[in-house]
Order: sequence, then structure tokens, then C-alpha cells
Amino acid sequence: MRLSKKKRQSRLIESFQKNPFLTDEEMAKQCSVSIQTIRLDRMELGIPEMRERLKHMAEKSFDEVRSLSPEEVIGEVISLELDQSGVSVLEISVDHVFERNQIARGHYLFAQANSLAVAIVNADLVLTRSAAIRFVRPVTLGEKCVAHAKVVQKQPSRFQVDVETKVLDDMVFQGVFDVYRATN
Amino acid sequence: MRLSKKKRQSRLIESFQKNPFLTDEEMAKQCSVSIQTIRLDRMELGIPEMRERLKHMAEKSFDEVRSLSPEEVIGEVISLELDQSGVSVLEISVDHVFERNQIARGHYLFAQANSLAVAIVNADLVLTRSAAIRFVRPVTLGEKCVAHAKVVQKQPSRFQVDVETKVLDDMVFQGVFDVYRATN
Repeated sequence: MRLSKKKRQSRLIESFQKNPFLTDEEMAKQCSVSIQTIRLDRMELGIPEMRERLKHMAEKSFDEVRSLSPEEVIGEVISLELDQSGVSVLEISVDHVFERNQIARGHYLFAQANSLAVAIVNADLVLTRSAAIRFVRPVTLGEKCVAHAKVVQKQPSRFQVDVETKVLDDMVFQGVFDVYRATN
Repeated sequence: MRLSKKKRQSRLIESFQKNPFLTDEEMAKQCSVSIQTIRLDRMELGIPEMRERLKHMAEKSFDEVRSLSPEEVIGEVISLELDQSGVSVLEISVDHVFERNQIARGHYLFAQANSLAVAIVNADLVLTRSAAIRFVRPVTLGEKCVAHAKVVQKQPSRFQVDVETKVLDDMVFQGVFDVYRATN
């Protein structure tokens, strides 16, 4: 169903605010218009393209990971506030899927969420004690998984970190991680 | 503390029965004797060496994995009875550990357990729905993780699989996996 230009543009503003990782292509599909139309909309509205949006986010809120070497985080960390929250993106490639059905293997989604849960903790030694996780819907080749992690409970040596991973608006994974942090 | 030969030999029988993956070297360390002594004990007792023990186990109880390509299982599957139980071994290499402390990354232990939980189900399409997991103690470089999976509940389209992973006698990981299996 095609929306009026006004409705489409207000939807654009809302969608990009909710999910800065949305590409023009995905947005075009959602609105049943061409990519060119979305680009023009963005220009009229003054919304920068995705790469610029991410750069802006990264500059605004980017603490350095302390508990891991940055390259040990599975997925790309896009935003990080130590002891508060973090966001990472993992695009599902052929290396991540079962050969027979192109569905992403669960441990990659787990690894993305788990490493983000560890990365947001401000300590040199952080280990996962336990986790309760749920694979909400299968993720397939090419999908972009955006994980949001949030510290919901802090004790001197234990943190509870909740992680929600979405593909566009679809929840695909949820996890509650209980992590241990060594107090120095 | 050194045991008498008789006590050592009865301990050997018990240990190898409980854990067929024990090497002579590990057993020697446990008993504070030389590897040669353990070899002689095994000969006297008629216990074959580890490679032979594993081969024997493998011949005795080895169904074929159906839900995955065999090379998609993380770790080496040593025993498998579809819809019943399975055992796999994962030796922690430099690829599996954090560079700064040589502790195995949680997602590898999760991947071993999760893929085994899927592998033991007799169906073409098996997906993990949810899991509750616990990392009992850190695992370090070179340790050999033996995961035992057991189907504890069967419904037509849902199985509960419990997995316990040990290094020698030490529990290092526990997981309860709720897996979905497509009924054909």
C-alpha cells in the first residue's frame, strides 16, 4: 500500500529515529516506492544517509571497550556507553548459516549478544556466568542483526545485561546475561 | 599422595569407565605416578589405550547425524544415539580463547552444546527455540571439553535436551535446550 508523500515522510523520520541502521533500500521496500524517492525524501528532510548517521552516532557515544580486545567483539559495535548500553550490528554471511537451509546458526546470534554484554562492562576481567536466551524467529542469509544491550542491574561484582536483537522491526533474539566482573 | 598399586588400579578402572576420554598422561598426573606406570596398569587390567577405547565406543553406538551436516557440529562427535543421547569433545585451541587471559570464549562452549543438542534429534529441520545455560568455571587453553547431551523430554515437535560439559571430573558448562523439530 502506497502512502501519501506527507505520511511517507513522517514515517521516514520515525523509522530512522527508531532504527538508524535502516538502508534506503529497505525503507523503499517498506513504503513501496523507489530508492530514488527515499533519497529525495531524505534530502528534503535533512536526514543524512546511513553511513553518515552511523558515523555521527559513533562520534557521539563511543566509549572504548575495556573487557575485550575490540576485534574480539562479534559484530560491529556502533555505539557504546560503558556500564550503560551498547549496540552492535552483525550481517549474516554464508559463514554464519547452515548450508542446507541458509538459516543463521544460533551460536552466532548468541556470540553477538554475549560479546556485547561483556563489552559494555567497564572492567578488565568480565565473564558470563549464566544466560537465558530465546531465538524468536530464524534469521536468514543477508539479514542484518542489530543487537541492543542494556545494563539493568549492577552489583559490585555482578551485572545483569539484557540484549534484544532485531532485524528491522522483527525481534529475532532475546537474552538475559548474568556477567561477573572482577573488581580491581 | 601416592596410592597403593591395588588402590590405583581400582581407581583406574573406575576413572576410565566414567570418562573414556582420559589420557594416560592425565591419569598419571592424578595418581602422581609416571605415564609408563599407567600403561603397565592398563596392560595388566586389559584396558585398551584411549584411541582404541574411543574407536570401540564409536563402533558400538554411532547413528548418523541427520539435522546437520556432520562437519557443522562444533567439536568431534564421539557417540550418538538419535533421539536419545550423544557425546562430543572439543579441545580448546588458541582460536577459542581470549588473547589476554587464555580463557575460552563462552560462545564456543555454547556452540558445542547447542550443536550437539540439535545433532541428536532425528529430523531434517531442527532449530533451537530457547536455552538456559550456565558457565560453571572458566575453561582454559588446551583443556578438553567433553559434552554429554541427553533428551529428557519428547513431544512431537519439541524436545528438551540437557547438556553437561566437563573437563575431566570438573563440570564447566550446563545447558537446558528447548529445540523445535519439524515433523515430516
